[in-house]
Amino acid sequence: MNIKKADKIPSIVVPRLSRYYRILFELDSSPLISSKVLSEHTGFTAAQIRRDLAYFGQFGSPGRGYNVEELKKTIKNILGLDRAWNVCVIGTGNLGMALLGYNGFKDQGFEVVAAFDSDPEKIGKTVNGIKILSISEMAKVVREKNIQIGLLTVPGRVAQQAAENAVNSGIKSIMNFAPVHLKLPENVKVRHIDMTVEIERLSFMISRE
Amino acid sequence: MNIKKADKIPSIVVPRLSRYYRILFELDSSPLISSKVLSEHTGFTAAQIRRDLAYFGQFGSPGRGYNVEELKKTIKNILGLDRAWNVCVIGTGNLGMALLGYNGFKDQGFEVVAAFDSDPEKIGKTVNGIKILSISEMAKVVREKNIQIGLLTVPGRVAQQAAENAVNSGIKSIMNFAPVHLKLPENVKVRHIDMTVEIERLSFMISRE
Repeated sequence: MNIKKADKIPSIVVPRLSRYYRILFELDSSPLISSKVLSEHTGFTAAQIRRDLAYFGQFGSPGRGYNVEELKKTIKNILGLDRAWNVCVIGTGNLGMALLGYNGFKDQGFEVVAAFDSDPEKIGKTVNGIKILSISEMAKVVREKNIQIGLLTVPGRVAQQAAENAVNSGIKSIMNFAPVHLKLPENVKVRHIDMTVEIERLSFMISRE
Repeated sequence: MNIKKADKIPSIVVPRLSRYYRILFELDSSPLISSKVLSEHTGFTAAQIRRDLAYFGQFGSPGRGYNVEELKKTIKNILGLDRAWNVCVIGTGNLGMALLGYNGFKDQGFEVVAAFDSDPEKIGKTVNGIKILSISEMAKVVREKNIQIGLLTVPGRVAQQAAENAVNSGIKSIMNFAPVHLKLPENVKVRHIDMTVEIERLSFMISRE
């Protein structure tokens, strides 16, 4: 991999790399894969795919396709999946509990190792092998368990405060499931997943018919 | 509401309407809200917000703000939240089970009323009050329970087939959680939520540091 080029990958390309990566595992193993086949399975155009993979430098033989193993290894490295990530759930309401019961991240190297809540009735309970701890223990646990990513699943009205507490506890990346925009220092990485927004896009589309 | 204008709302505006809608409920009730306050809570610019809300026609007094109750009612109507939606879970693996245990959609009028799987070991079990049914019963159940939206939570390799089966069973809208692009008739509405893509955007960003 041409690291210099890889460093220039725009963030818009990253979700597509994730998609290519999973497709490579989903498909029956063939040593080579063409941009055309990747296009069929992702819905991105073959031209787009060739442009995306060109960030890695010369890669694959024109007309023959990309070397699947090399492609897997390169994308794995680019996405930071060549190492394990420790994750915590912040807020064990409905969605937090659901995510504690969800092992899908683990396959990609993201392991939920802790859960936090402020509700005394929840603290101390164990879900899917994870004991729910008090928010007040977050700084200690983040340090001890080397937690890098927090899944923020608290209600919207307390999300900003909970996110600030997470950042003060040493968490540098937040996947925000709460329906609010978080104002955090620039060095904190935030991604927003709003499932309600997505389902409401569907209801909007159906209603318009 | 000016229906004519509302019909012209571009789909890119819809997720922002969802965000405004929830913010209006989250905030302490005041009869008026300014684009500035909405901006602070959503992260969208005040100019953007004014443009978005202008699709509804004249709405709110310049310099004074928008009428909160009127705004709620209008957005609710636009998003199709003035009615109930019946939803089913297709695939009761890890994520499907998590979504069966998640009641967050219900607050917005989306109720999970059925779950389907092809695994004989799962069929017949009850989770969160929902009995898991065989895929072969889908057409009957979709009709009987008037199901409009399917949450597709099957593995990637069977997602296309499961989606086609859902469409053949009468489902017109799919929220696709599987990591593959679905090829479906144009009249089927599809939204894609890929949680792994999102968490990998975080690991990419942390790794680049």
